[in-house]
Amino acid sequence: MKKYYLLTPGPTPIPPETAVQASLPILHHRTHEFGAVFVEVLEGLKYTFQTQQEVLLLTSSGTGGMESAVVNLLSPGDHAIVASSGVFGERWGKLLEAYGIQSSLVRAEWGRAVDPEQLAHAVKQHPEAKAVFTTHTETSTGVVNDIQAFGDIVHRSKAVLVVDAISGLGGEELHTDAWHVDVAVAGSQKGLMAPPGLAFVAISPKAWQLVESARSPRCYWDYRLMKQSLSEKETPFTPAVSLIMGLAESLRLIRKDGLETIWQRHIRLAEATRAGLKALGLPLFADPPCHVLTAVRLPAGMDGKRLIRSLRDTYGVSIAGGQESLAGKIIRLAHMGYMDRFDVLVGLGALEMAFSELGYPVTPGCGVAAAERVLLSPPTHSKERTPARQSYGPRPK
Amino acid sequence: MKKYYLLTPGPTPIPPETAVQASLPILHHRTHEFGAVFVEVLEGLKYTFQTQQEVLLLTSSGTGGMESAVVNLLSPGDHAIVASSGVFGERWGKLLEAYGIQSSLVRAEWGRAVDPEQLAHAVKQHPEAKAVFTTHTETSTGVVNDIQAFGDIVHRSKAVLVVDAISGLGGEELHTDAWHVDVAVAGSQKGLMAPPGLAFVAISPKAWQLVESARSPRCYWDYRLMKQSLSEKETPFTPAVSLIMGLAESLRLIRKDGLETIWQRHIRLAEATRAGLKALGLPLFADPPCHVLTAVRLPAGMDGKRLIRSLRDTYGVSIAGGQESLAGKIIRLAHMGYMDRFDVLVGLGALEMAFSELGYPVTPGCGVAAAERVLLSPPTHSKERTPARQSYGPRPK
Repeated sequence: MKKYYLLTPGPTPIPPETAVQASLPILHHRTHEFGAVFVEVLEGLKYTFQTQQEVLLLTSSGTGGMESAVVNLLSPGDHAIVASSGVFGERWGKLLEAYGIQSSLVRAEWGRAVDPEQLAHAVKQHPEAKAVFTTHTETSTGVVNDIQAFGDIVHRSKAVLVVDAISGLGGEELHTDAWHVDVAVAGSQKGLMAPPGLAFVAISPKAWQLVESARSPRCYWDYRLMKQSLSEKETPFTPAVSLIMGLAESLRLIRKDGLETIWQRHIRLAEATRAGLKALGLPLFADPPCHVLTAVRLPAGMDGKRLIRSLRDTYGVSIAGGQESLAGKIIRLAHMGYMDRFDVLVGLGALEMAFSELGYPVTPGCGVAAAERVLLSPPTHSKERTPARQSYGPRPK
Repeated sequence: MKKYYLLTPGPTPIPPETAVQASLPILHHRTHEFGAVFVEVLEGLKYTFQTQQEVLLLTSSGTGGMESAVVNLLSPGDHAIVASSGVFGERWGKLLEAYGIQSSLVRAEWGRAVDPEQLAHAVKQHPEAKAVFTTHTETSTGVVNDIQAFGDIVHRSKAVLVVDAISGLGGEELHTDAWHVDVAVAGSQKGLMAPPGLAFVAISPKAWQLVESARSPRCYWDYRLMKQSLSEKETPFTPAVSLIMGLAESLRLIRKDGLETIWQRHIRLAEATRAGLKALGLPLFADPPCHVLTAVRLPAGMDGKRLIRSLRDTYGVSIAGGQESLAGKIIRLAHMGYMDRFDVLVGLGALEMAFSELGYPVTPGCGVAAAERVLLSPPTHSKERTPARQSYGPRPK
């Protein structure tokens, strides 16, 4: 017998209710029954994005959603700014390059967020830039970018702000409309607690103007076709029906808990994970750290790849290692979506045992104990926050 | 209580075994466990395509698979030939246009297959054409194109043959390698008996040469990235894990039955459906008809859209109407994938009752009776056939 524990930053575990809905007999995508679920999903997504604007649904991974933003907003030869703090920030640069779009990179040291002042400088230096591409929670480093500050800057320019919120949505506080995010991209398999295979895009009126004028070639990704089909409660091409049925259930759970509660839960789990890892002597890698996953440095000399393999193959616990230049140097534990306090304890317990086996002895239970102490303490509200609005979701008439 | 019957040409019903596998806890896509299933799926697809060549898996609808073929094979300004016999043939033309590729259209009258001689003429007239795009079973009209003859023609030219086998694969006889198909595109939600959301592409060495030299922009669709990841038993981006787990089970069922048996079953169901509809006075629309769905003309004056609605809303039976210029004039009943003799009887019984209600009286049971007579008769083998090879599937070394 081997039980599997998924503590990776996507795909993440899904609620059994979601699995059941996704496994019901397939509905045809051009029926009233499916149309009603599709509309419900779009409304649930609007609430989760905190937007009144149109949300589109794509059958693809999150990267497909990112590519769709590039080809719908820009034309070959256009200029864009990429505000990057890791692997996923740099993916924007690769996508732009593939489509012949010039880009200026505002790059944070890995483990750090992009400095809003540097972004402001780049926006000033490049008045020709049509778009600024960035990442909300950068899962490669565990950092969170200050999207609210970015929105304040970009909002006052001609450019649109495009945010990869794939790993953050439904976990880390995000106010698409209030923070002036013009295009937010998300995926089904992270905070939204559904299987991978769906991507979503929320699009502001300012961004729609670019969609209408962009000349990059597109068909499958064409937002104009998707918008047309919305009036029929449909998608232009056969969508991943079963995943949408599952997502509908996850969005019901999100609505029931409420975003405020969900954001607070992620903060608690993040605090408990950080305390546990600190007790194991592992320093936090990211500053400022996001609340959907925690990245920590490994002790010098420890074989990080072997640790990940041991956790996965011996303990059945999947966590993530470092990517690219961080491979073997950091580990990343997710606490996003359908994860609770016991997932945190499982991750810490598995690390304690695997560390001992790899000859890096730790006091058994010391990480778990530190996490439990945080979980038992009263919640802290450390900063002024924008409350989530219940009113998003109903279709604007 | 309302039971739903899905008799549409995609999405189609899925076996309960497939639904169960797709609803198991999510595996991470970069683990041994998932890698083993992924390899098994690719081997099962090779058998179903009847190819020794590399098969790639995409998280998208079938149209995404079609678009991937266009952007991986061709460059802006290239020339291509489209051999079209309906809506899906013309979709190739739209995709090519979106990517700035010139195309010559060899168009069959809707309801007819493309004449191989006309295709041969076009290939001769356009030696500059790099690719010929066509459709195996054209679900908009119910016709099947003679892919074997197309392969004989295109094989002798510089062009590659690209076949949309989305609705045909796993139902209608297809020998990708033996018939010289260079690129075959398929989807999960038809003959492959899995939920929608996955597309597949089989690629010949002749086509790989084009992939290496093509200059259309691409990232999510890039076959080169997918091929690189294959050596790690992975995909470049997070795939639709749960759909792949389900598909693995459907492919096990396909392998167990064997393609010969599956093709014969589709022939029987097609013959029974045609006999039943003929008994209801509905003439066959397609010549030659495919074996995965049957399209028939409606009686003059009958409101086809109302019929479809009545079947769907009153009887819970989803069938397809005509598309574009055929809207309201024909109906299409699928018998593909996870459908058996009783699905045929349900479709005919529902039509008999709905016809009577719409004031077009038919003798109750006459269509069903005609279908049963076919199902009880000994099977006919009307033409020389290429046997399916069991040997496809093991990875070529």
